[in-house]
Amino acid sequence: MRNFRMVLQYEGTRYQGWQRQGSTDNTIQGKLETLLSKMTGQKIEIQGAGRTDAGVHALGQVANFHADTQMTQTEILEYMNRFLPEDIAVISLKEVSERFHSRLNATGKTYCYRVINSAIPHVFDRRYVHVVEQQLDIDAMREAAQYLTGTHDFKAFTSNKRGKKSTVRTINSIQIEKCAGTSMEVLGTQDEIRFLYRGDGFLYHMVRIMTGTLLEVGIHKRKPEEIAEILASGFRERAGELAPAKGLTLLEVRYQ
Amino acid sequence: MRNFRMVLQYEGTRYQGWQRQGSTDNTIQGKLETLLSKMTGQKIEIQGAGRTDAGVHALGQVANFHADTQMTQTEILEYMNRFLPEDIAVISLKEVSERFHSRLNATGKTYCYRVINSAIPHVFDRRYVHVVEQQLDIDAMREAAQYLTGTHDFKAFTSNKRGKKSTVRTINSIQIEKCAGTSMEVLGTQDEIRFLYRGDGFLYHMVRIMTGTLLEVGIHKRKPEEIAEILASGFRERAGELAPAKGLTLLEVRYQ
Repeated sequence: MRNFRMVLQYEGTRYQGWQRQGSTDNTIQGKLETLLSKMTGQKIEIQGAGRTDAGVHALGQVANFHADTQMTQTEILEYMNRFLPEDIAVISLKEVSERFHSRLNATGKTYCYRVINSAIPHVFDRRYVHVVEQQLDIDAMREAAQYLTGTHDFKAFTSNKRGKKSTVRTINSIQIEKCAGTSMEVLGTQDEIRFLYRGDGFLYHMVRIMTGTLLEVGIHKRKPEEIAEILASGFRERAGELAPAKGLTLLEVRYQ
Repeated sequence: MRNFRMVLQYEGTRYQGWQRQGSTDNTIQGKLETLLSKMTGQKIEIQGAGRTDAGVHALGQVANFHADTQMTQTEILEYMNRFLPEDIAVISLKEVSERFHSRLNATGKTYCYRVINSAIPHVFDRRYVHVVEQQLDIDAMREAAQYLTGTHDFKAFTSNKRGKKSTVRTINSIQIEKCAGTSMEVLGTQDEIRFLYRGDGFLYHMVRIMTGTLLEVGIHKRKPEEIAEILASGFRERAGELAPAKGLTLLEVRYQ
């Protein structure tokens, strides 16, 4: 059996997220598995590095699958891009060692959360950004982000209640940057703020709850110091709102 | 009567273009006029600086309208952005002298045509770019663009056949630049080429026919020198294909 590693891009808007969900399926994993099974005549199962939620996008999701096929890497890549819907694309595809597993071998991930901080709607990137009209205090959000950086028990920052597995994670950095908005920005009218999260892994909803909490600091509804208490409490109710899915994009998955 | 000048953004994908078309209307102008007429209780007519085609986008379209209203500029701006569909936005609105006319007073316009030069689909900006898989020769396209720059009779570069009016226009510059693609480009996998056209005015389909012709030079189907002959001929059939609408965006309208 050959093992193939893909880098994927997708717009999550019209999908129920990454993870396959039984028969009536509208997921990214489902679309890819259906296509690959058709291509190979075998039942193909895909391993994704991260299970992005419904509505979340990816610029560099990584996934792998095993298949018995004579097709070349280029033939598979071209076949997939020909038949995938236009909101999913395979950026690269390579044969890798049989032991490679996109999720188990991943050592880190980077997520980007995009916020437009303006009352003026942002037409071109509207599917990829969350709009916050109130003025956001970037310095306060950066101060708050310091409390989240490092190794912590992030139990208060996940919606997963089962809680058998460890909720300890390490966040290497949280960058909060003001930037010019859309790529075609000649008029300079937009105010975009990007939250860049680098970590070894993230719990269910963790990036969106961190962002929601930081935004509440940004509008002075909370103080930066509260983050320490929220972390220590372990209570989801103490943290902020879940920020909308559409602002979030999985940028990259890192490996050794 | 007060006169208001607006800067507008829109994604043209689902509209039949800027210009109003009778009663069963799905145009940008139509949407704006219907909303403003409702807001003021008067029949409002809008003057747009440029009549963008069906599917063409705008980042800085300018339009003006006269109205008898007690509303402030901010109130009108907020009202419009609250009730416009999310693919149309008013970026700014200002009261101006009664004599201002967005089209007649315009001294120049800038259009951008975006091409993704790659076989890999471009997910996030797919509604705003035209994909060309064959390798494009940028130097050849730049050489060809030199022939278009300056004051010429662009009769061969318009689909308008009535031809009573002058087809002489001045193009100040055509910039052709390779760039990194989407604003969230961390992976650096995309190859985007942008064509930036600055001129005093453009004929019907002119930017798209120029782009289509330059792309044929880019794939070595034509030589740069042919442009001079095409211009001299005045025959539309001699120029290249009409490039798809979705790659084109009206960036700005200039005034004295």
